[in-house]
Amino acid sequence: MCDKAFQDHYPDLLSHCYGCGRLNEKGHRIRSFWDGEESVARFTPSPEHIAVPGFVYGGLLASLIDCHGTGTAAAAAYRAEGREMDTEPPHRFLTASLQVDYLKPTPLGPELELRGKVAEVKGRKVVVDITLQADGVICVKGRVIAAEVPDEMIPRIK
Amino acid sequence: MCDKAFQDHYPDLLSHCYGCGRLNEKGHRIRSFWDGEESVARFTPSPEHIAVPGFVYGGLLASLIDCHGTGTAAAAAYRAEGREMDTEPPHRFLTASLQVDYLKPTPLGPELELRGKVAEVKGRKVVVDITLQADGVICVKGRVIAAEVPDEMIPRIK
Repeated sequence: MCDKAFQDHYPDLLSHCYGCGRLNEKGHRIRSFWDGEESVARFTPSPEHIAVPGFVYGGLLASLIDCHGTGTAAAAAYRAEGREMDTEPPHRFLTASLQVDYLKPTPLGPELELRGKVAEVKGRKVVVDITLQADGVICVKGRVIAAEVPDEMIPRIK
Repeated sequence: MCDKAFQDHYPDLLSHCYGCGRLNEKGHRIRSFWDGEESVARFTPSPEHIAVPGFVYGGLLASLIDCHGTGTAAAAAYRAEGREMDTEPPHRFLTASLQVDYLKPTPLGPELELRGKVAEVKGRKVVVDITLQADGVICVKGRVIAAEVPDEMIPRIK
């Protein structure tokens, strides 16, 4: 793993996401890295991220999978082009479709580990399969179909 | 619509969810109601719930669909039994599987409206299809497969 996360390479204007934007002071600031062919992110939920007592609420888990998926999609797009994430032009993906299967209740307390595998890179679309585990047990599986941010959503620099 | 939301009927010990628990002071406190055969919930995201500037981040949208889905599932279970939500025993559902399709970017600012349709009620499983709209335009569609909270997840009253 290198020290700089995928999300650290997002342009400032696209770094405000509540899930993964380094410039969103109230957000989760998820950070994703390569670990060989897989991507990995770690996150420890706060006590308020509760579903029923003792377990993490599903909306947070969906959010972690979502943002780890789009981060992995961006990193995979650079890799597919054989260039580093600090080169231009930048890649930034949003989620077109999210599938989350809650296999077991996710305990609230331990650090969670997300691992992503790139299933497909095709033009402006990247598909990422993700597992989320707590204490070494896979609790949630997800699939993110990510698409490059459409030009009309990118804020203009004036 | 009546004044009491589906979530207001959850037992106190199951009312801490970050998405919809009335006892979670930091959470979203989503509230869902019947509107004829459909369920409806309304929620106005905060400025920090941003994806890229001007749009809502997908994790929140997934969370809203998730909790509106489980709330609708509980209400549908009572309806299927022909009894009111203030009767015993209580129903409380969790999400087994969540599918979210982001059809259009969801603008950040306007109140969002979620509408749920019960697709299936079968034993401990309920399937709910949900649309999320902003300014009258459907931006997101989702499907929640909800399952009754397993007994081992329910905190014991001592």
